[in-house]
Order: sequence, then C-alpha cells, then structure tokens
Amino acid sequence: MSEVVELARRARQAAVLLAQTSTDQRNRGLLAMAQSLVARQDEILAANEKDILAAREKNTPAALVDRLELNPMRLKSISEALRSLSVLPDPIGEVVSGSRLANGIWLQQVRVPMGVVGIIYEARPNVTADAAGLCLKTGNAVILRGGSLAVNSNVAITRVLASAISGVGLPETAIQSVSSTDREAAEEMMGLHGMIDVLIPRGGAGLIKSVVENAKVPVIETGTGNCHIYVHETADPRMAQRIVVNAKVQRPGVCNAAETLLIDESIYEDVLPPILRALEDEGVTVHADDRARALGAIMRIQPATEEDWRTEYLDLHIACKVVTGLDDAIAHINAYGTKHSEAIVTSDYAAAQRFLNEVDAAAVYVNASTRFTDGGEFGLGAEIGISTQKLHARGPMGLAALTTTKYLAMGSGQIRE
Amino acid sequence: MSEVVELARRARQAAVLLAQTSTDQRNRGLLAMAQSLVARQDEILAANEKDILAAREKNTPAALVDRLELNPMRLKSISEALRSLSVLPDPIGEVVSGSRLANGIWLQQVRVPMGVVGIIYEARPNVTADAAGLCLKTGNAVILRGGSLAVNSNVAITRVLASAISGVGLPETAIQSVSSTDREAAEEMMGLHGMIDVLIPRGGAGLIKSVVENAKVPVIETGTGNCHIYVHETADPRMAQRIVVNAKVQRPGVCNAAETLLIDESIYEDVLPPILRALEDEGVTVHADDRARALGAIMRIQPATEEDWRTEYLDLHIACKVVTGLDDAIAHINAYGTKHSEAIVTSDYAAAQRFLNEVDAAAVYVNASTRFTDGGEFGLGAEIGISTQKLHARGPMGLAALTTTKYLAMGSGQIRE
Repeated sequence: MSEVVELARRARQAAVLLAQTSTDQRNRGLLAMAQSLVARQDEILAANEKDILAAREKNTPAALVDRLELNPMRLKSISEALRSLSVLPDPIGEVVSGSRLANGIWLQQVRVPMGVVGIIYEARPNVTADAAGLCLKTGNAVILRGGSLAVNSNVAITRVLASAISGVGLPETAIQSVSSTDREAAEEMMGLHGMIDVLIPRGGAGLIKSVVENAKVPVIETGTGNCHIYVHETADPRMAQRIVVNAKVQRPGVCNAAETLLIDESIYEDVLPPILRALEDEGVTVHADDRARALGAIMRIQPATEEDWRTEYLDLHIACKVVTGLDDAIAHINAYGTKHSEAIVTSDYAAAQRFLNEVDAAAVYVNASTRFTDGGEFGLGAEIGISTQKLHARGPMGLAALTTTKYLAMGSGQIRE
Repeated sequence: MSEVVELARRARQAAVLLAQTSTDQRNRGLLAMAQSLVARQDEILAANEKDILAAREKNTPAALVDRLELNPMRLKSISEALRSLSVLPDPIGEVVSGSRLANGIWLQQVRVPMGVVGIIYEARPNVTADAAGLCLKTGNAVILRGGSLAVNSNVAITRVLASAISGVGLPETAIQSVSSTDREAAEEMMGLHGMIDVLIPRGGAGLIKSVVENAKVPVIETGTGNCHIYVHETADPRMAQRIVVNAKVQRPGVCNAAETLLIDESIYEDVLPPILRALEDEGVTVHADDRARALGAIMRIQPATEEDWRTEYLDLHIACKVVTGLDDAIAHINAYGTKHSEAIVTSDYAAAQRFLNEVDAAAVYVNASTRFTDGGEFGLGAEIGISTQKLHARGPMGLAALTTTKYLAMGSGQIRE
C-alpha cells in the first residue's frame, strides 16, 4: 500500500472517532497544539533550519526563503491563532433546519464534519498548523501535503501537533502529513474518491489549476483574484484615488488586491492623472491603454496588452483601461475577472445597483476597497481560504465551509404509502 | 467550434440575462412551458414515436421502452409539475446573512443563480422538462444531454420549451439540449471548466461514476443508494416487519429502497422468520448469510456473497445478515453503504442516539422507512436529485441546491488600514 493510501486509511479511522468527540474535547486539543508548538519549538526550528539551508543551496529567491522561515516569534503567532480557534463557536451539531413532518416524523438537518479533508499547498509551513487547527475544530481528519521546500518543517510540525492531540485523548492520525513531495503523491491524493471527502488547494494559480483538472475528489477552488476597481463618471475623485491606491498597494501580494483600474472616458482626462501619480508615488508600474498613456501623467507607464487584462500581478503593477461607461466596465470585468472581488466607485444609485447585480463575483463592492474580502474582516472568525467557485462555498470560507449536514429522522413506525 | 462549446457560449449569454430577470418573469416562463407542452403535444409525441420505434428495433428491454414512452397523460403530468414549480417560493434574492461591519460597510450575502447548469442523464424524456423547469425557476441556463434512446423526444421537448420562454421575453438559449449523443459530446461538457458551473449526472451508477471521474467542472453526485434496515434486539417485531417490507417493496427501483436487512443475533431466530415470510409473500428473493438460511423459514432464499453486501439491486431482491449487535451493524453500514439512507428499528434510547450519531449518511432514520428520503416528503417542494456527496448539498436537493451566493458590500469610501 502506498504512503498516501495508508495515510488516508488511517485518517478515515480517525474521522470516525473525531465525529463522536465533544466541542470541549476538540478545543482542548487546540490548546494542547498551541502549547506544544511553543514547548517543542527547538525541534521545529531545527527542522526548519534544514529546509532553509536546502532552499538557499538551490538559490531559492529570498522572498520564498522568507515565507519558509520560522522563528520563535512566528511560532508564537501561529500558536496564538490556534488558541483563538479554540474560543470560536463550534459549527458541529448546529441544527440548520428542522420540522415535524405531516406524518409525525421529527426531521432535523444537523451540521456534521466532512470526514477527511486533504490540503495541497505550497511552501508556507504556517499553513500546516493553521489547516490542522481548522480541521480539528470542525471534527475533520486532515491529510496535509505541503511543498518540497518545507518538507522537514511540515513533518516536524505535524509530529508535534499529532502528539499534542493524542495527549488529550484524540486520535493521533487526525493530523497527518505526506512525507513524499513528489508529484505522484499529490496526484494519488486527487484520485482517492470516497477516501478523501474534499481537497482544498492553497497556492499559486498553477497548483490550483492542476488540482481542479486532475482531481476525482471534490475540490474547493480557492484563491486567484484578478480584481478590478471601476471608477464611474460620478465617482468622488478623492475617494476613487484612496480606494485604488489602497486596493493596489496596501498588500499587493494577496488575492484581494486590485489588478486592473477601469475608468470612464467622460472623466478620465481630469480624474486619472492624480490617481496615476499617486500610484507612481507608491512605486506602482502602470500598464495602460493608449488613451491613459497619452495623458503623459507619469513616467512609469507601459502599453497594456491583452495579456495585462488577464494578469494577476500580485505585485506593484496595475493595468489601466479607459472604458465607455458602466456596460463596458461590467462586460470587461465579467470577461476577464476571476470572480473574486470587484469594486465600483460611484455616487449614482442606479449605477451602484446595476454593478452589484450584474457583476458575477464572490464579493462585489460599492465605494470600498476590495481588500476587505477576508474571513476576519467579514466576521467569520477564521478563514481557510477564499473560494472562487460557486459550489459549496463562495468567498471567504469560515469554519462552516469545512462541514456538511446530515438529516436525522426520528419516527414511530412510519412507512410510505 | 464544436456543438457543445457553441451551446455553452450561448448558455453563458443567456445566464447573464437570466440573472437580471424577476421572479414573476421566470414564473411566467414556467407557465408558458407548461402550456406549450400540452398545446404542441403532437409534435412531441411524433418525435417520441420515432424514439420508441428505434428502441424496439434495437430490442430494447420493455421496461426501458416504457420509461421512454410519452403519451398525452404523461405530458399532462409533466406540464402540471412545471405549473407547481411556478408557485414555489423563489430562492433567488434571499438574503442569507448580513451585518453592518465595524467599519460601517453594509455586508449582505444573497442567493444568486449558479449560471450554467449541465445535466447528463439517461433515457427518460420527462427529465428534460423537469430539469429545464428547475433551472429556469432558479435563474440558471441549462444544457441538457440526454441518452441516445430519447434523442428525438429530447430535441422536440427542448424546442417547444425554448420557444415557450422566448415567447414571454426570456432568452431562448436558456434551455438547450445537445443533439449529439456520442460519448465525446458528454466528455466535452465535463471538460468545460469556467463555462459550465456545475454538472449533475442523473442515472445509473456507471454514468455517475464516469462523470465524477472525468469531469473538471464541479459535479454534484446523485443517486446510488445501498440502503440498510437494521433490526436492533429491542425492536418491536411487527414494526420491524412493516418497515422492512415497505422499504423494500413499496417501490423497489428507486434509490431510497432498502437493499440489505441487518438483524441482531440475540433475536433473529424468533424475529427473522416472519419478516422473511412477509418478504417472500411480496415476491422478494432473499440473499442471506448462513445463519439466516439455516432458519429454513422460506423457499426463495440464496446464499449471500461479499458481492451482495455491495449490491444496489433496485429490484425485488434483498441481502440479509445476522449481526452481533449495534457496533457490528454500524460498522457494516459504514463499510458497505453509499451514504444515502439508513434506518434502525429499536426501542432503546441509547441505541437510537448512537445510530443517529455514528452512521455516516445523508439521511439516518429511527423507526421509519428509508423511502422517505425525497424532496417532496422532506418538504422541499421540488427535487432535482438526491446528493450522496458531502460538498454543497447532501440528501434531497431542493431549489436552493441550484443556487450559490454572493457577498454585496456597500461602503462609503472604506479602505483597509
């Protein structure tokens, strides 16, 4: 039996036990995990050191090495996140709907764990603890498959967390990681229909595409955000500038950052130059269409190509297009957007209503930055990712996204006539 | 461009328009569909006649030909179903959750259409009108891909329905069917990630497996039901007999019919013989383990093999096993069940609670027939299938299962600090 199948078999056994645990037991598990991460930090940091040395030997870019690196402060903050999870309300057991049927059967739809969750992610060891915590909170067993760069860190963190929960009487195999980082192991996970209940890829567009295309297991697609800010002809120019700059530069590497600025042709000559200058001041390179470039407002401007309308830069770059109006803006967004987060800046009621109704995305904004699309900001308490698909969960996914429901029907001998 | 891609392109355009329609418009469309099915029945029945002749020429089994056949009474009843849909509450526009965030943004999560729904099904032309109605009700464009046996009927029904909705100002391409019935057309649909939002296979286990394994588009898995009735040692024997017989014979060809009877070893010698005789009286063949067969209670009994525990007979056959008790029964069900509908007959409180908690299925019953797992019985109004997966929808799927949500965020210039 391959490693992955063996892990899945053990995860299923753990899932059966986990489904019977109480909220208190699982919260005690989270606290034990939080404590162990700090208590056993030497072991984790030593493993992390190995990963960092190996990454440097391979000339891994500094930014990637930084994301890989753990230190006592980062471990402390991961540990705090687990502690915060322990005090969130438990979604498991919630009665979602219910009624007494006409025949007297008492029917309830209750929230239960998914069972076994698979997470396929790239080289960020904090995801290991994060995902393990979210899955334990929701009564799910988890199989973690991280990137090869972080393999030693991930194995060490998993060992520490699994032993922590085992110490409070929870099944140790509720938290497991795949030690093999070859492509085949990930592909094997994608094929385990019936053994893994849901797969969540977390990482770049390539990883997500590969999982979506190859998995037989149901997938929740997360992440890619080609988000737009559309400045309507009635926009308050200062508000538009503030929102565009915030959405682009406050944290350019995340999926809810803006990637394209659309602006109405009736106002662009006056309104666009100060926005472009503000972006340039923040170090942003603008990829603009001919009309925007002809304004000559800034130095750092490049001609936009068709490719720019599709690009999620995740960096200090933004595409810029002059549009003929609301219809053109909505059509552009629905054609090029990734259905993540889209915003209009306007003072017109009808334009706001049409934008909200007609733009097809997980989150649609009027007069606010796209950067708010986030489980914490939306009040979900914790986030396991942002779904850009329409099935099961859409937008920021809180704990409920890791659950399913089952119908419980209590009768007194009813048969169907 | 292939037929399927062209249909998908047109469906997407229709979906954009449909998303902006009012509840009234869509309900008028349903009524127009209902009227046209009856008004243009000659056209539909002529096409159906062709399918039936072709099926007979191919020596298609009589039961299949019967499922294929339309007549004025059947069309009338399909038409009535569309009429009933028109009076159900509209899920679209429902505000699922909402709040004023701390920063003043007014956030609402609202129910919206999926977009484009693909249905891949076998030779039952009533599914064509049924699925088209459910999709129109929920503001979705639909692409129907029926089996080759019903191709003329399906094309005729689709033509009639599309022209009916076009007559009330709805986009004609909201209802389309694939005229090619070769395997490639279905496989092409499965690959249209981003153009089709969800695929729902309706039909036999083979069809469903093929869609689940090959689709890159998200799938809702429906149907297969290897359902069990477990007779606990404390069961009321007459109630047990009534429930077992009902769950097996009231309609043996459907997914919520019972396929295996489990009974406790401490009572089987007394309780099982009358149940077996009642099943035999109803024409049921029993596939039983050694202990049950040794009772010699009935004539029509065969030795059960491992294969019987896995079989969804969909016919007057039932497997029968003597188990050592509750643990054994739950373990058997969780090992061999398809997570559809499972029942215990018991008078013991703790046994009922454990069964409800520990059996992993869409619907779990105490002292009632599994035959109740159905959208109508559960009060959902309409049903587009019974999901046996955990993602998005589980158990009978009502109109809400054909929808997704989006977050609308109305601000006044908020940016993220």
